[in-house]
Amino acid sequence: MERAIDLNSDMGESFGRYTLGMDESLLDHVSSANVACGYHAGDPTVMRRTVELCGAKGVGLGAHPGYLDLVGFGRRELRIAPDQLYAETLYQVGALGAFARAAGVELRHVKAHGALYNVLARDEALAVAFASAVAALNDRLILVGLPGCAMERAAGSAGLRYAREAFADRAYNPDGTLASRARPDALVTDPREVAARVIRMARDGRVTAIDGSDVELTPDTICLHGDTPGAAVLAQAVRGALAETGIAVVPLSTVVRQ
Amino acid sequence: MERAIDLNSDMGESFGRYTLGMDESLLDHVSSANVACGYHAGDPTVMRRTVELCGAKGVGLGAHPGYLDLVGFGRRELRIAPDQLYAETLYQVGALGAFARAAGVELRHVKAHGALYNVLARDEALAVAFASAVAALNDRLILVGLPGCAMERAAGSAGLRYAREAFADRAYNPDGTLASRARPDALVTDPREVAARVIRMARDGRVTAIDGSDVELTPDTICLHGDTPGAAVLAQAVRGALAETGIAVVPLSTVVRQ
Amino acid sequence: MERAIDLNSDMGESFGRYTLGMDESLLDHVSSANVACGYHAGDPTVMRRTVELCGAKGVGLGAHPGYLDLVGFGRRELRIAPDQLYAETLYQVGALGAFARAAGVELRHVKAHGALYNVLARDEALAVAFASAVAALNDRLILVGLPGCAMERAAGSAGLRYAREAFADRAYNPDGTLASRARPDALVTDPREVAARVIRMARDGRVTAIDGSDVELTPDTICLHGDTPGAAVLAQAVRGALAETGIAVVPLSTVVRQ
Amino acid sequence: MERAIDLNSDMGESFGRYTLGMDESLLDHVSSANVACGYHAGDPTVMRRTVELCGAKGVGLGAHPGYLDLVGFGRRELRIAPDQLYAETLYQVGALGAFARAAGVELRHVKAHGALYNVLARDEALAVAFASAVAALNDRLILVGLPGCAMERAAGSAGLRYAREAFADRAYNPDGTLASRARPDALVTDPREVAARVIRMARDGRVTAIDGSDVELTPDTICLHGDTPGAAVLAQAVRGALAETGIAVVPLSTVVRQ
Repeated sequence: MERAIDLNSDMGESFGRYTLGMDESLLDHVSSANVACGYHAGDPTVMRRTVELCGAKGVGLGAHPGYLDLVGFGRRELRIAPDQLYAETLYQVGALGAFARAAGVELRHVKAHGALYNVLARDEALAVAFASAVAALNDRLILVGLPGCAMERAAGSAGLRYAREAFADRAYNPDGTLASRARPDALVTDPREVAARVIRMARDGRVTAIDGSDVELTPDTICLHGDTPGAAVLAQAVRGALAETGIAVVPLSTVVRQ
Repeated sequence: MERAIDLNSDMGESFGRYTLGMDESLLDHVSSANVACGYHAGDPTVMRRTVELCGAKGVGLGAHPGYLDLVGFGRRELRIAPDQLYAETLYQVGALGAFARAAGVELRHVKAHGALYNVLARDEALAVAFASAVAALNDRLILVGLPGCAMERAAGSAGLRYAREAFADRAYNPDGTLASRARPDALVTDPREVAARVIRMARDGRVTAIDGSDVELTPDTICLHGDTPGAAVLAQAVRGALAETGIAVVPLSTVVRQ
Repeated sequence: MERAIDLNSDMGESFGRYTLGMDESLLDHVSSANVACGYHAGDPTVMRRTVELCGAKGVGLGAHPGYLDLVGFGRRELRIAPDQLYAETLYQVGALGAFARAAGVELRHVKAHGALYNVLARDEALAVAFASAVAALNDRLILVGLPGCAMERAAGSAGLRYAREAFADRAYNPDGTLASRARPDALVTDPREVAARVIRMARDGRVTAIDGSDVELTPDTICLHGDTPGAAVLAQAVRGALAETGIAVVPLSTVVRQ
Repeated sequence: MERAIDLNSDMGESFGRYTLGMDESLLDHVSSANVACGYHAGDPTVMRRTVELCGAKGVGLGAHPGYLDLVGFGRRELRIAPDQLYAETLYQVGALGAFARAAGVELRHVKAHGALYNVLARDEALAVAFASAVAALNDRLILVGLPGCAMERAAGSAGLRYAREAFADRAYNPDGTLASRARPDALVTDPREVAARVIRMARDGRVTAIDGSDVELTPDTICLHGDTPGAAVLAQAVRGALAETGIAVVPLSTVVRQ
């Protein structure tokens, strides 16, 4: 079978007068977009424009719900109860889904943002609440998250497909978790090095951890960050390397287990 | 043909620790509920509970979008552009629709809240934006608003059914508009007087204005306010009077013109 | 020396259309008020009214900053960095201080709200940030918190006076910490029982814990909750019992160590 | 007497993850900074940093309160009542004042932002509420606004000094009001043209309106916008031209009438 992978990026993180990210240029390089839903970033006007752009460029549309914490950009853990998370997930994914419906674009996946993403990897009750909300809305949606975590188990219980994600430009701990953003080497910024890491992930199922050891990964989708200055250059480098290696970039639904 | 009318009330206006309204008891008396969508009132947990209550009680579910102004409860005009209103309407109605879908309840109508309701009665461009957003989401939704206004024209242009609304406990100007809330006599509070006004509206198509003159009204639906202390008592009085007069209380879809 | 104690209560927790608490009647019974600053509760109009009421009734005015989480009423932990807490504390206390200045009322103390109160009892770095912000604004302000915790140590380091607080209607663990609100017996609601507990705290320096054992407490101030239906009745019972026992209710500055 | 003028610019408009403006480089060119207070822009961390920068660079610190409308950047009119504006002004200016006090920097002036600035130029009741709030906090503060408007009259009634402002890069109507931002020629962007306009304003008391006619202006302070890409270049051009012409750039308190 041909080797193939999905490339995803966070999008629609501008807000009102504030512009963030290089959405338009990145959309030429990725196959999936995670669109902020107005809680940690994004506003209705930005959501509409981003959804329409995804439709126009044929990029798979996903919802990117997060904590209601605009000033913290959803990167600070907030201790919410499972019932509240269930309701907040329905709210955010439902809101984004409305823009999809109005634009005639299909909503395909859901990926939690920032601190919520990390919490859902380890907290079973919250992961179940999140997956249940998504399933209650549309059981053909694909959940995206870390491999082998609470979120993956919750997706299974809720009857949802799950896409295992790796990060192109984030450093890894030897146990396969992401190295803390507080570390100076938390981000890999050199485009060639990022591209080389992506190839190793996609072709060999491995990535080098911060201690030099190898971590096994078999990602369905690889995340490219879009809020850094060189995001588009980096995405182009990754696409080029994948093409040279003969690895196809395909929609998420093609790569995830049914 | 039997005389019939819909009774609607605003619901789901609690927020976090703050409780407002007598939703549960009112739901026994009305046939339609307008549920706040988190902008001027309501939060995801309240929205979920209110939608489920409407389903359990068989009350017609509606979205009640408003200005993003919680501290002003959506009662202060905010000069937003038509494009912004289009996006904010999709956002709010889409979010509420997600709770409806998760609860297996059908969303049936949309009614703007507070200052937005009044602005949409007179501003054609904003009314068109609002109606277009609703139609883009679901063209079977019914819009609710004042009779003969910009909102009614916009509903027609967007291909949406429209329900003309009267207010049970609000004083009317001789020209059929609502008397300002700033007036001491803006609200009718005596349950028997409110019931008598509702009967006159529903049976005779008339209401007495603040100057004593008669205003013609042929409402499809009559709004009972739910955030006043005696809201449930008042609703009961209205229901009793309608029953005695032989006027049926029916779902909105039954009374609006196709 | 005569036995004396301060009684404090949270105030100004209404928001826009939403009313919470019995501020006016409670202000007749307490000697200190902790006024919400617009983050977890309160809005500028409510803050102004509450500050003016405190001035009119001669109740000691305090700021009650919390997490920026209105929908969670500041009761959910949010992982903010010390630098952010420093800035958010200055913002909130400064805003309340402006109303004090405009009303000619002196701001006397600062007490953190909800989840922040609990976090500051155990997190040294955050407690230092909080105390530093208060000291930078006005070093005569008194900090209020649990006895013998990180907050008390931080107050000392910042050169601020500290008032040890006990809770009239909260159940205690045998180690002197507050029993979780999740327990069914977390709140003592019978006015006579609450009054008896306050007398034991103020006179004997003891309270009975949930396991029946005695906990030693020597509070400078005792908190009466104001957001429960019977708050005013309860406050009256406590005042009556204190008067009978010959314990004076005095301003916070009288009881705290210099 | 030597000709002199104050140059002011809006600052501290970043928010959380979102960066806006060139604050650091602009602070080398202006003599007054209007710092956002968290309502239309800015957050506590940004406010602290901006206040400290103003202190370090010796730039006169001002508060820049606006509507509570982050997504609209305070540029959309919101119909608030005078009492609400009074309270919201105290809140915002008080919050900024706390950062000033903690940093040992003096707060010198207050200028309303965006739509509020325009509303206060024409609405007497709101202008009185705004000026009263500022005066209640600190009667040595200088208000900044359009010449000869409601705000100037309200400042006088409240006993506050008033600085008349002109705009370096905004087009003027023949009657001296600002041309609508909706016009394509609303902004002058060429640095040399902007510099020439500033010289004419500061030296001759005139500016050319959109119809080619001359408008008389005798500004105490001239506003340079800081949120445009070329803001620093433009500011440098203006400073250079003023220096060549022998017009000193001085603190606001030097130029306003006592």
